[in-house]
Amino acid sequence: MSNGDIFVGEIIGTAILILFGAGVCAAVTLRYSKARASGWVVIAFGWGFGVLAGAYTAAPLSGGHLNPAVTLGIAVDTGEWGKVWIYVLGQFVGAMIGAVLCYLTYFAQFQANVRKTGTTEGTADEPVPTLGIFSTIPEIRHPVANLVTEIIATVGLVLPILAFGLTEGLGESGTLVLIVSLLVVGIGLSLGGPTGYAINPTRDLGPRIVHTFLPIPNKGTSDWGYAWIPVVGPLIGGALAGLVYNLAF
Amino acid sequence: MSNGDIFVGEIIGTAILILFGAGVCAAVTLRYSKARASGWVVIAFGWGFGVLAGAYTAAPLSGGHLNPAVTLGIAVDTGEWGKVWIYVLGQFVGAMIGAVLCYLTYFAQFQANVRKTGTTEGTADEPVPTLGIFSTIPEIRHPVANLVTEIIATVGLVLPILAFGLTEGLGESGTLVLIVSLLVVGIGLSLGGPTGYAINPTRDLGPRIVHTFLPIPNKGTSDWGYAWIPVVGPLIGGALAGLVYNLAF
Amino acid sequence: MSNGDIFVGEIIGTAILILFGAGVCAAVTLRYSKARASGWVVIAFGWGFGVLAGAYTAAPLSGGHLNPAVTLGIAVDTGEWGKVWIYVLGQFVGAMIGAVLCYLTYFAQFQANVRKTGTTEGTADEPVPTLGIFSTIPEIRHPVANLVTEIIATVGLVLPILAFGLTEGLGESGTLVLIVSLLVVGIGLSLGGPTGYAINPTRDLGPRIVHTFLPIPNKGTSDWGYAWIPVVGPLIGGALAGLVYNLAF
Amino acid sequence: MSNGDIFVGEIIGTAILILFGAGVCAAVTLRYSKARASGWVVIAFGWGFGVLAGAYTAAPLSGGHLNPAVTLGIAVDTGEWGKVWIYVLGQFVGAMIGAVLCYLTYFAQFQANVRKTGTTEGTADEPVPTLGIFSTIPEIRHPVANLVTEIIATVGLVLPILAFGLTEGLGESGTLVLIVSLLVVGIGLSLGGPTGYAINPTRDLGPRIVHTFLPIPNKGTSDWGYAWIPVVGPLIGGALAGLVYNLAF
Repeated sequence: MSNGDIFVGEIIGTAILILFGAGVCAAVTLRYSKARASGWVVIAFGWGFGVLAGAYTAAPLSGGHLNPAVTLGIAVDTGEWGKVWIYVLGQFVGAMIGAVLCYLTYFAQFQANVRKTGTTEGTADEPVPTLGIFSTIPEIRHPVANLVTEIIATVGLVLPILAFGLTEGLGESGTLVLIVSLLVVGIGLSLGGPTGYAINPTRDLGPRIVHTFLPIPNKGTSDWGYAWIPVVGPLIGGALAGLVYNLAF
Repeated sequence: MSNGDIFVGEIIGTAILILFGAGVCAAVTLRYSKARASGWVVIAFGWGFGVLAGAYTAAPLSGGHLNPAVTLGIAVDTGEWGKVWIYVLGQFVGAMIGAVLCYLTYFAQFQANVRKTGTTEGTADEPVPTLGIFSTIPEIRHPVANLVTEIIATVGLVLPILAFGLTEGLGESGTLVLIVSLLVVGIGLSLGGPTGYAINPTRDLGPRIVHTFLPIPNKGTSDWGYAWIPVVGPLIGGALAGLVYNLAF
Repeated sequence: MSNGDIFVGEIIGTAILILFGAGVCAAVTLRYSKARASGWVVIAFGWGFGVLAGAYTAAPLSGGHLNPAVTLGIAVDTGEWGKVWIYVLGQFVGAMIGAVLCYLTYFAQFQANVRKTGTTEGTADEPVPTLGIFSTIPEIRHPVANLVTEIIATVGLVLPILAFGLTEGLGESGTLVLIVSLLVVGIGLSLGGPTGYAINPTRDLGPRIVHTFLPIPNKGTSDWGYAWIPVVGPLIGGALAGLVYNLAF
Repeated sequence: MSNGDIFVGEIIGTAILILFGAGVCAAVTLRYSKARASGWVVIAFGWGFGVLAGAYTAAPLSGGHLNPAVTLGIAVDTGEWGKVWIYVLGQFVGAMIGAVLCYLTYFAQFQANVRKTGTTEGTADEPVPTLGIFSTIPEIRHPVANLVTEIIATVGLVLPILAFGLTEGLGESGTLVLIVSLLVVGIGLSLGGPTGYAINPTRDLGPRIVHTFLPIPNKGTSDWGYAWIPVVGPLIGGALAGLVYNLAF
């Protein structure tokens, strides 16, 4: 795979991932969305099928990492670091594009975040905080516990991904990405409760930057004090998964 | 594939798609349905598995496009326009047949839309509007924003479909249609909030015509003022996806 | 496949199907079940994965029809009628065994259907009707409409099943049964609203006989007046699907 | 497969299974979790995708049993008992590790089980019992009925697993584990109502031991009086499935 293909593939793939992932959070969070308040199962499947859409699209160009933690885990395992920066750069650019696309998709809903009309959700005068659509927010703010949650959840993502390729008939077939996307659904359902499962540094940081600059009415805080945890935790988790994989398999 | 096979395949496949898709909207919307008020996750999976049912059935005859936006995206990419009209005509006829089949399946429920009995859903005297079973209705009426939503959501459908065929071992296997149907579930969950995701001109226009003429008690408006958006938006999105694919892959 | 293998395969497969299918209805319906009131999405996926469990188990012995409508559709298409009676007999015996297994699995819950304790569901003194766990009940009793619903839903099951085998790489692989089970989830979500989707004569008749004789406290009516519809409707639908398939493909 | 590979594979795979499975119970049960009160469908898919994650990871090392009932069923069928103890020991160690990882993932949530703040769930002063996160609790305490439920549900797991391998093109491909994980979703939806479906001795016993010793505030009883049922029931079920398989196939 050429550097150009990798760069373009990761941009397109991560943009689709974040469009779907931020999209499902917008769908569930915002008033005047048909999916409002439709629950955690919708969030988890939305993100998982975002991985399916993005990774299958990117696969022929870049292999479809879409996540620096995955790229790091592979690099730690294989020892090949030369193209890591191209992957991560593409993922970062793609994540920001995806966040903007989500904003455009839900443009009228974001604008209506100030509208004062009778509504069954919450108080009409009270706008919905919007950061949770773009980036993760912990339920309980506890840096060490939040970091541990992100590390474990990321190991739960990257270690299986590394191992899946060894299953006879899976690594060579198109079924692999499907399995990974269902794995991501599973991580969301099972391990997403405490922090909202970033498990991907660019998934959280890129959209947080976009959130900071977008002209959303009453958007609320971008919460930069928490921003390091969904970056550092997944990186530790990805590297740890690469080490465990190298040791055990 | 012969013209006759394409025509018959697209009719049968699109009829099944709309039977399932309009069916799940009827199931969730109508009183006296066992699935009433069962939420967005049911809508999204119902439409997705409608694609699964219709596209696998049509696949051996026509390849199973079932959507002018998909047909257009492929034509823009390949430059082959000769059979586009057969595909679209079949899709259009099929969509109308599917809408009639949905009406027949839920016949007693549609008739009961005037019945005045004690019920836990809403006021007994107030019939449910029925257009949302057949065609899409935006949550916030904002032509530009609605159009942008449909364009982005359709790119999110057609670009991955074009790219999926490149994944080693997927394009040649029967797994491809399964992935596309889960992609459609994902689009519903993530991008369906603002407009109800037509992402397919015949899916919206065919059933809207049927809704206009069907003798449903208290059926409410067929909302022809909005009808152009779910036709034009998906066509722009499909063409755009073909262009991006041609450029990037 | 020998007659003995077919008979044993259909018994085991249909018993598993009904154990899962009646089981999920018990899970959602009965008080003192962890899944009580968990909604239509649980019903639809429970039945679909019952098909997955039963059909994959039966596949190596009998091909895993588990449904006289499927067996009939295949016979109408191929013209081979010699083994139809073995299939149907096995399906019938299996359906009754499965219903008994469901009763045993939920034994304590069925017994507790008379228990008078404080509970959040309904009035404690009012037992839950149990027929809906074993057989289908229409939301609106309208013989013609109910029959039409069962016919259309069964065509929506059998026509795709017949066509799926033609998809390159699907008919020969183990993925076929997975697709069929997701198709059944889709039928449940989309077409199950009016009658509870029997789409299978033995699935409804076998458990109804078992319900008639089982010593369940306060079990309520077995509703034999409706029993012919979920038998005749699916048989018409299966034959119709065989004819359409033969004509169109 | 060497003894060492089997041991390591079963430890890693079962640890992942329990991390996801106990994790989803924590996600739904605990206050201050984003998935709290999100219902049975989340539980069932969480455990199923835990099987997917754990079994695909373990597959290249040990084949991915992750369950003494599966190991027993295979041994009863094949007559090969030499490596059973290695499998079971690895499963047991893995289950305890997984339970500890779940505790660490939800550390802040477990600590907050005493926090007295305004909350919409229950009374703020009343902590949530935590045993249900680690081990199973019957809805109705009835040893014979509970045992029968676990036996039938385990036959419903192990008999299909044994038979799935015979489906042409499934046993040799990577799709097999996917099917098994959806089977586990199905068992949860359909047969989990009465006892919470242990269907796996180590899945219940390992985490129960961990629950007994973990310093969780207000954790409630570890309910050792019930502990034998989710061990004995699945073992009987696994052996029974092996016998039926041997007889019928």
